[in-house]
Amino acid sequence: MKVLVINSGSSSLKAQLMETDNGKVLAKAYCQRIGLDKAFMDFKTDEKRVINADMPTHKEAFQVFLNALTDKKIGVISDLSEIKAIGHRLVNFGEKYNKSIVVTKEIYEDLKNYIHFAPLHNPPAMLGIQVCMELMPGVKNVAVFDTAFHSTMPEKAYIYAIPYEFYTENKIRRYGAHGTSHRYIARKCAELFGDLKGKKIISCHLGSGSSICAIKDGKCVDTSMGYTPLAGVVMGTRSGDLDPAVVKEIMDVKGISVDDTINLLNKQSGLIGLTGGLSDMRDIDANLDKPRIKLAFDVMVYSIKKYIGAYAAAMNGVDYIIFTAGVGENDHLVREAVCEGLDYLGVDFDKNVNESAPRGTVQEFTKKGSKVKVYRIPTDEEYMIALDTAELAK
Amino acid sequence: MKVLVINSGSSSLKAQLMETDNGKVLAKAYCQRIGLDKAFMDFKTDEKRVINADMPTHKEAFQVFLNALTDKKIGVISDLSEIKAIGHRLVNFGEKYNKSIVVTKEIYEDLKNYIHFAPLHNPPAMLGIQVCMELMPGVKNVAVFDTAFHSTMPEKAYIYAIPYEFYTENKIRRYGAHGTSHRYIARKCAELFGDLKGKKIISCHLGSGSSICAIKDGKCVDTSMGYTPLAGVVMGTRSGDLDPAVVKEIMDVKGISVDDTINLLNKQSGLIGLTGGLSDMRDIDANLDKPRIKLAFDVMVYSIKKYIGAYAAAMNGVDYIIFTAGVGENDHLVREAVCEGLDYLGVDFDKNVNESAPRGTVQEFTKKGSKVKVYRIPTDEEYMIALDTAELAK
Repeated sequence: MKVLVINSGSSSLKAQLMETDNGKVLAKAYCQRIGLDKAFMDFKTDEKRVINADMPTHKEAFQVFLNALTDKKIGVISDLSEIKAIGHRLVNFGEKYNKSIVVTKEIYEDLKNYIHFAPLHNPPAMLGIQVCMELMPGVKNVAVFDTAFHSTMPEKAYIYAIPYEFYTENKIRRYGAHGTSHRYIARKCAELFGDLKGKKIISCHLGSGSSICAIKDGKCVDTSMGYTPLAGVVMGTRSGDLDPAVVKEIMDVKGISVDDTINLLNKQSGLIGLTGGLSDMRDIDANLDKPRIKLAFDVMVYSIKKYIGAYAAAMNGVDYIIFTAGVGENDHLVREAVCEGLDYLGVDFDKNVNESAPRGTVQEFTKKGSKVKVYRIPTDEEYMIALDTAELAK
Repeated sequence: MKVLVINSGSSSLKAQLMETDNGKVLAKAYCQRIGLDKAFMDFKTDEKRVINADMPTHKEAFQVFLNALTDKKIGVISDLSEIKAIGHRLVNFGEKYNKSIVVTKEIYEDLKNYIHFAPLHNPPAMLGIQVCMELMPGVKNVAVFDTAFHSTMPEKAYIYAIPYEFYTENKIRRYGAHGTSHRYIARKCAELFGDLKGKKIISCHLGSGSSICAIKDGKCVDTSMGYTPLAGVVMGTRSGDLDPAVVKEIMDVKGISVDDTINLLNKQSGLIGLTGGLSDMRDIDANLDKPRIKLAFDVMVYSIKKYIGAYAAAMNGVDYIIFTAGVGENDHLVREAVCEGLDYLGVDFDKNVNESAPRGTVQEFTKKGSKVKVYRIPTDEEYMIALDTAELAK
């Protein structure tokens, strides 16, 4: 089935057309500078093109994409009716929306009540759905929630040790993020390793944002991101977990508001805060001879290693450690440093394979007989969204 | 050598007289309601007594203690000159004070510059030193810092992933707490198990405040409390680690200041927040049939288990897991729940011994041949302070 997958940002729109029968991406678009001057769309089929066009709103951007899809010269379908459904990536709409769902008018209205769970991401995502409803009436829209995979966490993993009313009344709890990616990893593990019953997986989604997920019997039992994506391991620009009193201390010494402080912890902390300017792992890796940059690398790696240890304890062991997303898939230095000194778990890491294996493929990094297996599995959130969308649009 | 050990609180004074040659406590006093009406002192030698006396300030309280010590009827020494030195428990005076030290007039003045590292604990502690200087001139005062044991942590364990200037300029970093207790545990482990070179210990100090400490080669390599004692595992009234964004969310939904929020996280969170009133483990244990109380128990235990796992990863394994302090020493339900499902580490826990062993002694809780050994070791911070004091007063 041909479906669209939409990921709508505040001034951008990512869209792709997929054939779910074979997982093939027929066309991929990235509209940028929506609402600004010099808006353009990267459009990739067999060829790559840049299309300049006015995009005062997401509606025009989506129309530019649809036009390209059906264009006689550069398009890949002859009629929009070939598109059977549209899947949308949504971040967090709270506990209620814990699985993928067809967005009816009623659901759309109800979703508006839960915007505040991801105040930056949810408004443009809602706009994306609205535009699709307008421009492709009659085509089903499916919402795929990033938090859904984490909805199987036991209470002890998602409840914070704060007055209980903050959970019952204000729904402050751990929700996690990157759930669609971790779900894809679990699915792929089942494909590669067989039935996940009894199997323990630690999925390390390491990108500019990073999260670790403990997966037992194929289900999420814990994850490192929390009420927001600020929690967990050290990231490109995010601090990860902190002594909560540090929030107050930063407010005090800088004389700034709590909003500015949380913003600082989201945007100017993590690797970029420690190095004083670098957030991209490739830049970090290229400068490890500089002590402060090495420190940033070490602090990040150590935070990941501690989460792997914590989740091994949570599950009474681990069978598979999976690296995925930009850094996890491509950065052999990070993988090596994380896996160094995990002998106690039964990790027999193969440094040579880790360094020399070609990119972009499923790849084992442990030696034959290693009790715990370490793998790279390239993630594919869009495919996961497309599969859910096809399933619900049947 | 006979030394006094002083622990001075805002309206209380704990003091004891010890003989460091044999570790015997000759007298123990707990002055309460200092500065209030109906002040009194519990005074324990071979007998227990309550002494009512006016104690408008810590000075009078200390004098009441000294009088009792030398009293012909209830005292234990004939003259104050038998007391050779006084050790003081200090919490955190920053990185500079990373080992026990004789408090000269100059040091006393300098310590004043570092009060802000523990704004609640440091002022009464300073007062305690001042009172001792006044009432026992010529007797050496020794400061024993709780953070000292943690000063061996590697940078990657104490640096937060926030802009680096917060460390260099504002000294915001992980300091840890309970260091004197964890140091005592390390010392006792060396006594019991021999040279600690190559040995990996996880010390679980579980009381109303709790912290976990990773000890390698006898030295602290990481600990769960952070810039303040709010961080780490779930405690009686403290939340432990949180998504920093939860601080802002609580401020927003309650409409309270950041100071009130940090206070709420210190005083009304943890077990008392989850249960809605219970912070004492004995009360929790007696009510585990009630779902919310069981949840609080589970959330706390799970946080401890994850730290044990994290520190096993940090050290590439663990040889000894030690339980100490009020809850760690006496609560077999907590110990059992924490050690359940640590088979992957090589913990072969003996539930029967754990339940039935007499209290108050060094006790192993693992079966013969268990790869990781689990022990109770009663802590004794005062003895540790007394030993440092005797050493420096030589």
